[in-house]
Amino acid sequence: MSLEDRFRGIFTIPSTPFRADGEIDIPSFRRLVDFCVACGAHGLVYPVNASEFTLLSDEERFMLSQALVEQNSGRLPVILGVAGVAAETAAKFARHARQIGADGVIAMPPYLRAGDFLAEEIFAYYLAIAEAAQLPVFIQNYMPPVGTNLSAEFILRLCREIEYVQYIKEETVPSTFKLTAIRQGDPQGFCKGVFGGSGGRYLIEEYRRGSAGNMPGCHVTDVMVAFWNALEAGDERRALYIYKELAPLFFFEHQLSGSYKEVLFRRGVIDCPLKRQGAMPMDEIASQYLDEILRALEPLMSWGK
Amino acid sequence: MSLEDRFRGIFTIPSTPFRADGEIDIPSFRRLVDFCVACGAHGLVYPVNASEFTLLSDEERFMLSQALVEQNSGRLPVILGVAGVAAETAAKFARHARQIGADGVIAMPPYLRAGDFLAEEIFAYYLAIAEAAQLPVFIQNYMPPVGTNLSAEFILRLCREIEYVQYIKEETVPSTFKLTAIRQGDPQGFCKGVFGGSGGRYLIEEYRRGSAGNMPGCHVTDVMVAFWNALEAGDERRALYIYKELAPLFFFEHQLSGSYKEVLFRRGVIDCPLKRQGAMPMDEIASQYLDEILRALEPLMSWGK
Amino acid sequence: MSLEDRFRGIFTIPSTPFRADGEIDIPSFRRLVDFCVACGAHGLVYPVNASEFTLLSDEERFMLSQALVEQNSGRLPVILGVAGVAAETAAKFARHARQIGADGVIAMPPYLRAGDFLAEEIFAYYLAIAEAAQLPVFIQNYMPPVGTNLSAEFILRLCREIEYVQYIKEETVPSTFKLTAIRQGDPQGFCKGVFGGSGGRYLIEEYRRGSAGNMPGCHVTDVMVAFWNALEAGDERRALYIYKELAPLFFFEHQLSGSYKEVLFRRGVIDCPLKRQGAMPMDEIASQYLDEILRALEPLMSWGK
Amino acid sequence: MSLEDRFRGIFTIPSTPFRADGEIDIPSFRRLVDFCVACGAHGLVYPVNASEFTLLSDEERFMLSQALVEQNSGRLPVILGVAGVAAETAAKFARHARQIGADGVIAMPPYLRAGDFLAEEIFAYYLAIAEAAQLPVFIQNYMPPVGTNLSAEFILRLCREIEYVQYIKEETVPSTFKLTAIRQGDPQGFCKGVFGGSGGRYLIEEYRRGSAGNMPGCHVTDVMVAFWNALEAGDERRALYIYKELAPLFFFEHQLSGSYKEVLFRRGVIDCPLKRQGAMPMDEIASQYLDEILRALEPLMSWGK
Repeated sequence: MSLEDRFRGIFTIPSTPFRADGEIDIPSFRRLVDFCVACGAHGLVYPVNASEFTLLSDEERFMLSQALVEQNSGRLPVILGVAGVAAETAAKFARHARQIGADGVIAMPPYLRAGDFLAEEIFAYYLAIAEAAQLPVFIQNYMPPVGTNLSAEFILRLCREIEYVQYIKEETVPSTFKLTAIRQGDPQGFCKGVFGGSGGRYLIEEYRRGSAGNMPGCHVTDVMVAFWNALEAGDERRALYIYKELAPLFFFEHQLSGSYKEVLFRRGVIDCPLKRQGAMPMDEIASQYLDEILRALEPLMSWGK
Repeated sequence: MSLEDRFRGIFTIPSTPFRADGEIDIPSFRRLVDFCVACGAHGLVYPVNASEFTLLSDEERFMLSQALVEQNSGRLPVILGVAGVAAETAAKFARHARQIGADGVIAMPPYLRAGDFLAEEIFAYYLAIAEAAQLPVFIQNYMPPVGTNLSAEFILRLCREIEYVQYIKEETVPSTFKLTAIRQGDPQGFCKGVFGGSGGRYLIEEYRRGSAGNMPGCHVTDVMVAFWNALEAGDERRALYIYKELAPLFFFEHQLSGSYKEVLFRRGVIDCPLKRQGAMPMDEIASQYLDEILRALEPLMSWGK
Repeated sequence: MSLEDRFRGIFTIPSTPFRADGEIDIPSFRRLVDFCVACGAHGLVYPVNASEFTLLSDEERFMLSQALVEQNSGRLPVILGVAGVAAETAAKFARHARQIGADGVIAMPPYLRAGDFLAEEIFAYYLAIAEAAQLPVFIQNYMPPVGTNLSAEFILRLCREIEYVQYIKEETVPSTFKLTAIRQGDPQGFCKGVFGGSGGRYLIEEYRRGSAGNMPGCHVTDVMVAFWNALEAGDERRALYIYKELAPLFFFEHQLSGSYKEVLFRRGVIDCPLKRQGAMPMDEIASQYLDEILRALEPLMSWGK
Repeated sequence: MSLEDRFRGIFTIPSTPFRADGEIDIPSFRRLVDFCVACGAHGLVYPVNASEFTLLSDEERFMLSQALVEQNSGRLPVILGVAGVAAETAAKFARHARQIGADGVIAMPPYLRAGDFLAEEIFAYYLAIAEAAQLPVFIQNYMPPVGTNLSAEFILRLCREIEYVQYIKEETVPSTFKLTAIRQGDPQGFCKGVFGGSGGRYLIEEYRRGSAGNMPGCHVTDVMVAFWNALEAGDERRALYIYKELAPLFFFEHQLSGSYKEVLFRRGVIDCPLKRQGAMPMDEIASQYLDEILRALEPLMSWGK
C-alpha cells in the first residue's frame, strides 16, 4: 500500500482525558483510542491542539504517545505530534516518536512567541525534526498566536529541501486557496498530500481542491467518516446533507472551547469532561441545546450500533 | 409603539459599495437600502464593521449616513454607527446622527489600540456619545483587535449610569453566556434589549436566551428575516431548517472576508463587488461553489419575487 | 540647496495641545511651532504618532496642518503626516498637504488592522499617496499594532518603483540593522535618506550607520539638536555625554505615555498637558522625579536663554 | 535573619549557556553561577525569561535547577522559576524546587495563550504552586504575550488568600505606579516585598517607591550591585551616575535580544554566546559599539579585579 493510500481520509485527534484532579485518565484514553478505531477513522493524530498538548508535561507527552501506539496496536496509521518551543525539544519528541513506532509526525513551527521566528529558524526546526524522526513529517500551518501563517512558497521549499517533509495540515485563512496554491505550485509532487483541519468546516471545498483528508477532533469521528466516505464515493449530495446536519455542532463549538470532551463524555466514551484549564462554561440552556444537537446527529452516528 | 417593540428583529447592515476606482457608489448604495427594506428587515444599522466603516473618511461617513436616512425615508428604524478613536470624534458623529434624524446610535469602544483604554475612559466615551446623540445608544461588544471585550458587569454599569445607553450588540465569545449574564444581572431592566451579531451564527441559542434581535450583514437579509420570523412564530423546527440551509454560506464567509459584497453583486443589487482594501480573493472553484450555495438558498430568498 | 541637504538633522514632531475640554488649543499649538524653530530644529513633522494623530478628526487634521504651515511660514521644511486607514483617505491628506505647501509627506502603511494588508495593497497605498502629493514621501517603518514591520527589500522596492518615495523613517527592531540593510541594498541611491525615530534612543549607532537625521517628539528639541549637532561636528564624545544626560528622561517616558506634553507644559510652552485619551498617570513621586530630571537637563536646554 | 532581610537587593538571573550544537553547556553554567556570586549578587533567580526558560525541555529545567543549587552551595538565596503552561506542570516544578532546597519560587501566570485565563484559573495556579513548594512564592507580573498584566488588587488578593504568596516581581507598564499601588493597598503587609525587573531601567524610581530589590539579567551583575548598594547607602548621586553609565548598554539591549550572553561571552564567563533560537544579529558596527560600551563600563566592573 503506497504512502498516499495509507495517509488518506479522516485522521482523527483523540482528546486527552483528565480526572477531576487534573491528572491523566489513562483508562478513558485507551477507550477513546478504541472509539476512534471503531468509528472507522483512517488514522490517529496525537497530541496536537485539539488534545491540549501544550498543557502536558514532557513526560506526560511521552507516556501518552506510547499508550496510544500500544492501544492502537497497528490498527491505524499513527501520526504523533512533536511540536516544540525550540528545535532541540521538538527533536526529542521526534526521536521518541520513531522509537515507539509512529508512522509519521506532525508539528507547527515553534509555538511560543510564534511570530518571532525567522524563516531560517523555522527551516532548521523542521530539519531537526525530520532528521530525528526519519518518518513522514506533516507541517501544520495554523493561525497565530500559537501557529505561524506560512506561505505556500515557503511550505513547498520545506518539502523540496528537507527529506521526509511531505505532508501539510492546512488551516490558515483562507485555507482553501492555500491548499490550491500548494498543489499548483508543486508539479513534481514533493508534497504527497494536504489535509484540512478546522474541524472539517471547509471539507467540501477542500475535497474539490484535491485534499488528501482532514484532521478533526474526535468527538463525532463516526459522522466525520461518513461525511468523508460520501465524498470519496462521489456522493456530494449526501456529503452536503451531513455537512448541514453537523453545522449546529460546529457553531456550538465556536463559542465553547472544550466541547470535544463534553461530547465524548455525553457519548459515554470518557469519564470526565474537564479540561486541564478548567471546566467548559456551561449552563442549563447550553446543556439542553447540546443534547438536542447530539440527538439530531444520532442517525449519522455509527458507533455503538 | 414602544421602544422595545420598534427595536426588535433583524436590523440589517448595508454594505458600502465602491466603484472600481475606490470611490463611493451612491446609486448602488441607494438600491441597497431599498433592497434591505424590500427584504423585510426590521431596522437598518450603518456604518459599522460589515460596512467597512473604518475605511471611510469622516466626510464620507457623514454623507453616506445622510444618504441612508434619506433613502430609508422613515420606513425602518435607523441606527447610525458613531464609533470613533476618541470621545471627541465619536461625539461629532453622534451629534450629526441626531441632526439628520437617526432613531438610535451604535458604537464599539474606541477602536484603535482598543486594548489600551481604561474603564473610566470608556465610560467617558459613551457619556460623550449619549450626551451628543440624545438617542438610544447601543454598545457594540466586539472582539479585539478593533473591539474591546467588555464584561457584563461593566456593560450594565454603563446602562445604569448613563442616560440613553439602553441596548447591546453582543458578539464576544461566548456571546450566548454574556447575553444571559447581561439579562440576569439587570432585574430592573436598565438594558432594553440585547441583539446578537456574528452574522446570525448563534441565532437559535440567542433567541432561547431572550435576545431582542440580530444585526447581520445584509447580503441575505430576506433569508435572515425568514429565520427570525420563524423563531418569533414559535416554529423553531423551521428556524433550524433555515439555519442549516444557511450554514454553507456562513462557513464560506469565514474564509473569505468580503463575501457580503460578492453576494450582493451576484444578486444584482450593487454594481461592483470590490472592497476598498481590494478584491476578495476568488478563483474558479470558489466562484462556482458560491454560485451553488446561492442557488440552493434561492427558495428561501423572497426579494425580487 | 539639494534635497539631501534640506532633509537632514532633527525633524521634530510638535504635539497636539488640547484644552481641558478635549478641544484643540490653537494658541498653544502656534507657540509650540515657534518653540521648535527657536530650539534650532532642522524640520517639522506633523501630525504623526507623537502628535496623537489618530485621535484627530479629519477636519482637525486638515486645520492643524494648515495652522502649522502658516505658523512656520517657510522657516523650516515641513513634512506632513498623511497616514490613513485606506489608500483613498491617505490620498486626500496627501492632496491637501500639497495644496497648502508642504515640503514632503510621511505615512505608515494603513494603520488599522495593520497586519492584514498584502504587499500589493501597501504598494497601491504608497502609489496613491505619491501621486496625490507629488512631493518627497517618507515611509514610516513602525512596529505593530499600528505599524507594519516592512522588510528592507520591500522598502527599497517602493523607493525604486514609485516616484517620490525617497525617504524612510526607520523605527522597527532592530532599527540599526534595518538602516544598514536599506543603505547597503541601494547602491544606486533610490532612497535619499533614512531617519531614525524611537525618540532618539539609538541616535549614536544610527549616525555611525549613515542616518540622515532623527524624528523625535519635540519636548526637548533644543537638547536633541545639541545632540545631533555634536555628531555632525564630529564630537562623538560630547554626543555621548548628552546621550547619557538624556537617558533618565528616555526611561521615564518608557513608563508614562504622554510625557511629551507634560514636559512641554512644565517648560511653559503649552497651557495644558492633557492627552485626548485622558491625563497621563502622575503622582507625587513621579512628578518630583520628572522635575529633577528636567532640572538636570537645563544646562543643555538653549530655549528661552 | 528575617525573610525581608534575606530577600533584598540584586537577585540576578543566570543565562542558560548553550554549545554551538544547541545543547546545554554545564561547565559554562557553573562558571556563570560563580560569576554571579563573585559579583556580589544578593540572590539568584533561575530559570526565568532572561534564561530562555521556555526553550528548555522539562528535563533540562530540572537538571539545570539542580546544578545551580549545587554550584551555589548555600552562598546566596536561590529563587527557582516554576512557571508552567498549566497548574499541574507548574506544581511539578514547584515540588522539585522544594525537594532540591530552593529558598523560594517565582512564576508568571500560565505563559502560553496567557490572555485567555480567568482570574479563578490564575488563583488555582498560584495555589497549586504554593502548596507544592511550601516556600515563599514570587508572582512575576509581566507584559503580554507571555506575561499577564495583573492588577494590584488581584495581586494583593493572591497575597492575602494564599499562604506563601508573599513577593512580587513587578515589570508591567507603568511598573512604578503599580509598585506604589501594591504597597499602599497592603497596610497589613501580606506582601513582604516588591522587586523591580526590566533589567533595572527604572531602579531609581523603584527605590524611591520602596522596592525590595531588582531581578536583572546577570551580564553586568557587578555594576548592578554597585548601583543598588549606592542607593542603599543613601548615595543617590552616585546611583544616578552609574545609571547614566549603564544607559548605552540598556538601549543597545533594547534592539538586540540576546545581548546578555554576548556580553557574558565577551567578559570571558561563558564559552559560546548563542541563544537556542539562533545567533543574536550582529555586524561590525554593532560589535565595535558594544565593545566600546563595555570598555566604558569597566571602571564600574568589580569582577576579576
